[in-house]
Amino acid sequence: MNRYRVAVHITPRRGILDPQGRTVADALHTLGFAAVRDVHVGRHIIVDVDAADRGAAERSTREMCERLLANPVTEDFEIASVEAS
Amino acid sequence: MNRYRVAVHITPRRGILDPQGRTVADALHTLGFAAVRDVHVGRHIIVDVDAADRGAAERSTREMCERLLANPVTEDFEIASVEAS
Repeated sequence: MNRYRVAVHITPRRGILDPQGRTVADALHTLGFAAVRDVHVGRHIIVDVDAADRGAAERSTREMCERLLANPVTEDFEIASVEAS
Repeated sequence: MNRYRVAVHITPRRGILDPQGRTVADALHTLGFAAVRDVHVGRHIIVDVDAADRGAAERSTREMCERLLANPVTEDFEIASVEAS
């Protein structure tokens, strides 16, 4: 078994309202960042997991996203990186 | 002016308690993912911003992190990518 650090990005699905992103964009405008056009707020999750190899670490993390980490109705996820640690 | 899509990772600072990460790790264990060693939950923020060039887009987003997006006491941030859009 080796240990891997897997990074996951979970983002609001396109076309789904993102009230948190809207709120952050408004706050940035208020602070004077007039050039901000849009903001999306998602989650950046780091999972340290033991697995036989890199592929197994990625498959396992993908299953975690499908079963717990991401909301399948409103969110998309992608495995951003898998690094031996 | 060009438009850029800047991705930012905001993560709990090392050594700071991460109760959300702890909770997610416990939930994954309960679901049977026994190989999970640790979980950290941060934010993945996408900022669409108009700027003269890539460097200006990154500098502007860095200032947004320092002034609003990240908590300077408990969080670290990094600019993950800057892409023309």
